[in-house]
Amino acid sequence: MQDRANVLLIGCGGIGTIAALNLECGKRATVTAVLRSNHEIVKQRGFNIRSIDHGVVNGFKPSNIRDQIPDVVREQLPRFKYVLCTTKNYADIPPTVAELIAPAITPGHTVIVLIQNGLNIERPMYHAFPKNIVLSGVSFCGSHEVKSGDIVHEDNDELYIGAFRNPNLDTPEGQAAEDEAAREFASIYAAGGKCVVEVKPEVAWTRWRKLLYNACLNPICAVTDLDTGRIQLADGALDTMVRPAMQEIRAAAKACGHELPEELVETMIQMDPVSMYNPPSMQVDIRKGRFCEFESILGEPLREGTKRGVSMPIITTFYNILRAMQWSTKQKKGMVEIPAPEDHTMKQGRN
Amino acid sequence: MQDRANVLLIGCGGIGTIAALNLECGKRATVTAVLRSNHEIVKQRGFNIRSIDHGVVNGFKPSNIRDQIPDVVREQLPRFKYVLCTTKNYADIPPTVAELIAPAITPGHTVIVLIQNGLNIERPMYHAFPKNIVLSGVSFCGSHEVKSGDIVHEDNDELYIGAFRNPNLDTPEGQAAEDEAAREFASIYAAGGKCVVEVKPEVAWTRWRKLLYNACLNPICAVTDLDTGRIQLADGALDTMVRPAMQEIRAAAKACGHELPEELVETMIQMDPVSMYNPPSMQVDIRKGRFCEFESILGEPLREGTKRGVSMPIITTFYNILRAMQWSTKQKKGMVEIPAPEDHTMKQGRN
Repeated sequence: MQDRANVLLIGCGGIGTIAALNLECGKRATVTAVLRSNHEIVKQRGFNIRSIDHGVVNGFKPSNIRDQIPDVVREQLPRFKYVLCTTKNYADIPPTVAELIAPAITPGHTVIVLIQNGLNIERPMYHAFPKNIVLSGVSFCGSHEVKSGDIVHEDNDELYIGAFRNPNLDTPEGQAAEDEAAREFASIYAAGGKCVVEVKPEVAWTRWRKLLYNACLNPICAVTDLDTGRIQLADGALDTMVRPAMQEIRAAAKACGHELPEELVETMIQMDPVSMYNPPSMQVDIRKGRFCEFESILGEPLREGTKRGVSMPIITTFYNILRAMQWSTKQKKGMVEIPAPEDHTMKQGRN
Repeated sequence: MQDRANVLLIGCGGIGTIAALNLECGKRATVTAVLRSNHEIVKQRGFNIRSIDHGVVNGFKPSNIRDQIPDVVREQLPRFKYVLCTTKNYADIPPTVAELIAPAITPGHTVIVLIQNGLNIERPMYHAFPKNIVLSGVSFCGSHEVKSGDIVHEDNDELYIGAFRNPNLDTPEGQAAEDEAAREFASIYAAGGKCVVEVKPEVAWTRWRKLLYNACLNPICAVTDLDTGRIQLADGALDTMVRPAMQEIRAAAKACGHELPEELVETMIQMDPVSMYNPPSMQVDIRKGRFCEFESILGEPLREGTKRGVSMPIITTFYNILRAMQWSTKQKKGMVEIPAPEDHTMKQGRN
């Protein structure tokens, strides 16, 4: 029997908990999970999970539960082979993912696995951890923490794993090690046999493909507050916003060397049937007054496209809207100060 | 002493009530006001008004109060010289303004005064009332019904009156009659001496000038839910959205033959000081789940500009967003049916 890999999991919500369950049930990993809001309840009674892949699992506890990121040096802990991040990735809200995970990373040893949306999320990792391998995880898994410690997992876990290319490991041996890490992690993750894990070396293509959904339906649904069912029914929304935005992403992807077939547009639109009335994650974030990942999901593809001369007017406008809304969320959370109001509290304008 | 003009006022909220007060206090008009939601309370005790122009006025009642549009023929009423509309103007939500006011209009006699925002609002009037004069009122009046029957009027009433050009009255005499109607109505409105009324024959220019504010700040504030103070503070909002949208409106106006000076951009932005934190009317409508006037305020200038070859990507996107949101408001009000949800009520997607 192989030794179990020492895995740190950061972000134990809907997707993270199912990842923990897959890793533990395959018996090739020991998972230390960092919990925040649900730490107390999960420490007491574990997660209660209703899963399309695993059935009803009550009282699931990862091998170790922590309430903060372990500091492997200061605490003299065994080093982690994998640090798996399933948190949101906010490029513009401190702490960044790199700052957050730093105490748990052993330079040149720990493989960082980012199961997160968006583009260029590996770059800050190489800046902070120049000699580490970073893997890309693109997840199509419908799973949500419906209340603290209770997970409902309704769409099968499909995970695409591939190696990002660390420019500091740019040798045949370096890239072979990256690819081997991807295969190894995928096999550990899949060992329980309850999920679909595919090794996809075309990391960038896979991420652009998912952006066709995320960079278009997420912001359009979030800003209009129409879910993926209603956006298919609303006057003109598909023809005036969703389809042309997806064509902008296709054009940006193509300018970056990644051909996304035309048919994918309709595939992505119809991925969620109308009658599901499914709010994408960004819409849920906006509704709940939370930050949204507009920089990695819209900002990065927009910058990659426009610097190559691609016209992206719809994505640009949604990016600017979400940037202003993110400021508003910061302001509501007290992270930016604004001048005190004058005594015009009832004023509603001259227009 | 002159006879008092018989005026019907439709829309007795913040702006309409101040209009009624100006008309009655000048003693050159008898106002019949059509009230809806506030009919009972105003019938009982009148409006209570705190006005920057009129002071505190408690118990103000227009000469006549009605709970629906009078039918002058069926009810054998004296015909109205002026029908003044201060309602919102929703081109896409029945009944239209023309349908609403029809029973009160005497063909070839009644002058229709539209104190409403947006472009091309006179066209349906000429279709319904081919021989009537229609006046344009552009109002810069900050006044609001803070609760039923209670009006707070905080910004001085400034009204720009001019004649729209009825293509069926396209003779020197016809146009002279239109211009005379504008002067006459302005003098009746101003007779009380408590407001600024200016006759502006350049109706289209005046309306485009106001669109610089309405077609830009209204939708941008409504969609981001940032008021006119916060939109000046939010990351990049002025530079990436407000100013370029205003330049699109300037370009569209220019293509239509109306030159809006460059300086107006900053004038409009700074019209509401930051510390006022003023939600424009469209933002108030969206917050309250009401319809918004996106067709006359965005749709018409967009169509006028784009058909003349003006590129208006930001206005286009905001128009499409508001069109989808208007659909959503209709759907929430039960005016459109959607397929029943499947049993996926907890579903929040695979993204």
